[in-house]
Parts: sequence; C-alpha cells; structure tokens
Amino acid sequence: MTEPMLGNNMCVQVAVLVHDIEEASRKYAEFFGVEPPKIITTPSYEVTKDIYRGEPCKGNAKLAFFVMGNVRLELIEPSPEPSIWRECLDKDGEGFHHIAFLVDDTDGKVAKAEAFGMTKVQQGFMGNGGIYTYLDARDKLKIFIELLQPPAKKD
Amino acid sequence: MTEPMLGNNMCVQVAVLVHDIEEASRKYAEFFGVEPPKIITTPSYEVTKDIYRGEPCKGNAKLAFFVMGNVRLELIEPSPEPSIWRECLDKDGEGFHHIAFLVDDTDGKVAKAEAFGMTKVQQGFMGNGGIYTYLDARDKLKIFIELLQPPAKKD
Repeated sequence: MTEPMLGNNMCVQVAVLVHDIEEASRKYAEFFGVEPPKIITTPSYEVTKDIYRGEPCKGNAKLAFFVMGNVRLELIEPSPEPSIWRECLDKDGEGFHHIAFLVDDTDGKVAKAEAFGMTKVQQGFMGNGGIYTYLDARDKLKIFIELLQPPAKKD
Repeated sequence: MTEPMLGNNMCVQVAVLVHDIEEASRKYAEFFGVEPPKIITTPSYEVTKDIYRGEPCKGNAKLAFFVMGNVRLELIEPSPEPSIWRECLDKDGEGFHHIAFLVDDTDGKVAKAEAFGMTKVQQGFMGNGGIYTYLDARDKLKIFIELLQPPAKKD
C-alpha cells in the first residue's frame, strides 16, 4: 500500500470519441431517458493555450455530457485540425477515449505519472480556468487517462 | 424525457482487456496505491451456461477489480477459446472493453435494447447466480455495454 499516484482514485468521467456529436448525443439521450444536453465547443487556442505533442494545438472539440451516477459520460467530436482527439479518432475510429480523475497540483501529478512511464500528450486550460492534461498510459494501464484540475478558488 | 432504457443510468464498471492480467494488475495497483487484488477465474460453462453469438461459449476469463469511487475498474484476460472478450482482444488489442449497468429483469431490458438497435453478443450466469449480458451498442453508442443482474434474494 502506498498513496494513490493522483492523490485519489475517484473516476469522474468516461469519454467517447464520435464523428457526429449531434447524432450520438440524440442516441445517448434516448438511451438515458433525458433531453439531449447542450453541446459545448471548447475555447480557441487563445484561451486554452493547449500544447499537443509539443506544439500549439490548433484543434478543438465539441463536447456533450451525460450523468451516470457519480461519473459523467463525455462525448467528444474533434475538429479536423490536429489534436489528441483527432489523432485517436483517425487512428482507432469511434469509441472509448479516456477516463478522468480530479487532481490538484497538475505539475506534481504529471511528474509522478511520467516517472511511472506515462507520456503527456496534450495539456491546456479549460474555459473555466482549470487545467486539463491527457496522459498516454497505454503502456502501463492500456488506456489514456485525463487529469482535471479545477480552477483556483477566488479569495 | 422518458425513462432510462435500463431503469437507471448508474455506471458501475469500466472494463479493460489485457493480455497479461498479473502484469496489468500490478501496474494498476501501483497507480492506485493498493495491494494487487485477488485474480478471479470465471466459472466453467457448466456453471455459466454462457452463449456467445448463439453458440455455447467455451472461453472464460481471469478478472481483477479496483475501486475508483463508486465505479470499479475491471481487468479482463480472456482464455484462448472463443468469447466476446477474446474476439475484441484479437481484433482491437488491449484497452477499453465496456461499461456496465445494474439491471433487474434482464430479458425485458435486452428486448428494449434490441429494439433500440443493440445486439446481444454474450450472456450467461455469474458465479454468484446473477446474470451478465454483453450488448454490442457500437452502432448507437459507439461502445459495448454490459448488463449485470444481481442474484435473486433468498427468502
């Protein structure tokens, strides 16, 4: 027994890549028995300052969220420009993309993850000022994981 | 707004296919900061009576579970014989396999899922007497889902 590498083991999100988020969102809404949620477009590079594999990330994504108990199902439709979402959708097609965990201290957690053998493939600011980080954990955990750091609380 | 197709929208499991469950389990245990869990082998056909794509299922699997808040991470290493696990591992390699939901009335829920466009690909009894069912929901939801029906309570 040691400490959880990310500080906690609470999975908060299961994400699925899709070609057409309007269509997929309607199907998930029917499955879950809810109204289709509002589709969100991630902010532009000027806000996110995303870095994708070491370069400024020109791609963005449309997102839709569904509640599944304490976990959210996230649908992601990437724009055509390069991003980790576009890379995975082009390479592997529609389907699962990642599970996400809440973290504080992104830099510290990424350092631990890298020492463990994960690779940081994309990172940026969310629209709310929080930080998101995708880690390629396929060598060790067989999947991608995302770290979500909430925005700092205002004084 | 209608009713959830399965009666609830509570995701209880995220499952990942692996080639070597001993190795993957050690890595996940290190990541989560826990002792490697006991690895379970699913019962033989005589107990499960599994049907895989219309035929008796000769394959089984080794399983390991990790707690991620209210969701469990399930690792699955299939045996070499045909099963939905072996099929997906051979076709798509290691990685995400399904998310699972608890249900009652498996037959009723499967009928609704089939009417929606999902396909039942494997079903059988669990060691505890409950029923598991895998649905190919890729056309509509882009993933496989599993229905887990707990064993009937004894009087």
